[in-house]
Amino acid sequence: MMEATQIPQHMLSKDPFSTWLGIKILSVEVGKVSLGMQVRPEMLNSMGKAHGGISYSLADTAFGFTANTHGKYALSIESSINHIEALEAGDFLTATCTLDLPKNRLGFHIVEVKRGEELVALFKGVVYRTNKDWV
Amino acid sequence: MMEATQIPQHMLSKDPFSTWLGIKILSVEVGKVSLGMQVRPEMLNSMGKAHGGISYSLADTAFGFTANTHGKYALSIESSINHIEALEAGDFLTATCTLDLPKNRLGFHIVEVKRGEELVALFKGVVYRTNKDWV
Amino acid sequence: MMEATQIPQHMLSKDPFSTWLGIKILSVEVGKVSLGMQVRPEMLNSMGKAHGGISYSLADTAFGFTANTHGKYALSIESSINHIEALEAGDFLTATCTLDLPKNRLGFHIVEVKRGEELVALFKGVVYRTNKDWV
Amino acid sequence: MMEATQIPQHMLSKDPFSTWLGIKILSVEVGKVSLGMQVRPEMLNSMGKAHGGISYSLADTAFGFTANTHGKYALSIESSINHIEALEAGDFLTATCTLDLPKNRLGFHIVEVKRGEELVALFKGVVYRTNKDWV
Repeated sequence: MMEATQIPQHMLSKDPFSTWLGIKILSVEVGKVSLGMQVRPEMLNSMGKAHGGISYSLADTAFGFTANTHGKYALSIESSINHIEALEAGDFLTATCTLDLPKNRLGFHIVEVKRGEELVALFKGVVYRTNKDWV
Repeated sequence: MMEATQIPQHMLSKDPFSTWLGIKILSVEVGKVSLGMQVRPEMLNSMGKAHGGISYSLADTAFGFTANTHGKYALSIESSINHIEALEAGDFLTATCTLDLPKNRLGFHIVEVKRGEELVALFKGVVYRTNKDWV
Repeated sequence: MMEATQIPQHMLSKDPFSTWLGIKILSVEVGKVSLGMQVRPEMLNSMGKAHGGISYSLADTAFGFTANTHGKYALSIESSINHIEALEAGDFLTATCTLDLPKNRLGFHIVEVKRGEELVALFKGVVYRTNKDWV
Repeated sequence: MMEATQIPQHMLSKDPFSTWLGIKILSVEVGKVSLGMQVRPEMLNSMGKAHGGISYSLADTAFGFTANTHGKYALSIESSINHIEALEAGDFLTATCTLDLPKNRLGFHIVEVKRGEELVALFKGVVYRTNKDWV
C-alpha cells in the first residue's frame, strides 16, 4: 500500500482534468487535504463569472483526495454545493476538507472553498469506500 | 427583451467554459433545455473516469440555461448531484431539465444526465431570480 | 422473505412516528410507494405553517418504504428537500417516489410531495442497501 | 423590533411541533443557536431507531432559529441531511448551528447534530430572508 499522505499527489499526477484546472496541493494530512487554483478566462460562464462547475470541480477534487487518504478507493455518491459569491478570472481559490468522518463503507465530508479568508462556496459530500487499496 | 427561447444559444455563445466542454444545445423550450457533449480524455480523473466536475458542469449549464428561459437573470444558490455511473472518454452525454418550477424569486429544478437511455447522474438545483432582463 | 409489496404495510405497522403523523399507504408497487397524510395543528411551526420536519418526514417515509420494496433492509445516507410552498393545518399531502434506481449497494430516489396537483416539496435521497432480508 | 437573542425563545413558545419534540434551547447568540432534545419511543421507525424526520426536525429548528436571529423572517428553501448514526429511544441529542453566513437575501448554514461528542447527523441549509421584522 502507498503511504496515505502520498495518495493525493499520486492521484493528481494521473488526473487530467484537475491538471487542466491548474490545481496544486497546498497541504495533506490523513483526512484533510487543501488545494489551490486560479480562475482563468476559459473557466468563465456567460455572465463573465466562474462557471459553477469550476468551484464544484475544485471542491470535488479536495473531497476525493481527502476521502482517499484513508487508503481505499473511495467513490463519490452524493455531493451538494452552495455558490455563495461570484468569482472572477484571476481569483485564487483554496479548497479545504474541514470535516472528514469515515464510517465503515461510507465517509462524510465538508469542503470550504475560499478566496483569501472569504467563504465563497460550501460543499458537502458522501463517499462509498471500496475494498480496493491504493498501491 | 430577447425572445426566451433564444437565451440559451446567446448564453452559450458567451460561455467559454461550456464551450471548452463542447456543449451543444439539442433543444430549447421555455422551462426545458436539453444539452449534449462528449467526454474527452482531458476530462478524466485519476481513476480514468470522467471527473465528477464534468457531469456536474454539464448539468449545471442545463439548469442555468433553463432557469434563464424565464427571461430574468437567474443565479444558482444550491445544487446537488448524485454520480450514479462512472463515465468514460468517448461517452456522449445529454442533460435535460425535467423539472422547472418558477416561484417568485426562486426556481426549483431537476436535471437528468443520461448516456443513451441510461440515467448516469441526477442533479437538483435552486436558482434565485434577479430583476435583470436578458436584452 | 416477505412479498415485496407487503413490506411497506408491515413497516408502517411497526413505525410509531409515521403512525403519529397519520400516514396512510395509498399505493404500492416495487419501486413506487405513495403515501398520504393530513397536516394537524400540532405539526405547525412558529409561523403557523407546517414545520419543515413534517413534509420531510412524510417524504422520508415514502423514500424508505420504496427503497425497501427491493427486499433488503435499506438505510438512508443522504437526503435533501426543497420546501416550495408553505403548508397549513388541514392540508392533505401525498408523497410519491417518482424515481427509484437501485444500483448494487445503493439506491437513488426522488419523492414529490403534493397538495392536490400542486408540488409543495421536492426530495432527493440515497440509500445504502444491506444484506439483510425482510422476513 | 424584538431583541435578536430573544427571537428563538419567542419562536419556540409559538411552535407546536418543536414543543412536541421536547426541544429546549441550550444557548443563543446571534448566528449560533444550540438546541437539545431526547428521543422518545413515539419517535422511532420500523427498525426501532429514531425516524430520519426526528433528527432532521431538530436540525431544521436549530437552522430556522439561527437564521431568524438576524431579525428578519427567514424561510428555508433548501436543506440536506446525512444520517450518520442510528439513534435510539433515550438518546439525548444536541443540534448546533456551526456555520451562519448571511448574504443579502440569503443565508447559508451548517448544523451538527450530536449525541454527546459524537456527530450523528450533518445538515446544510439555505434560507431566503424576507423584509418582515420580528416584532
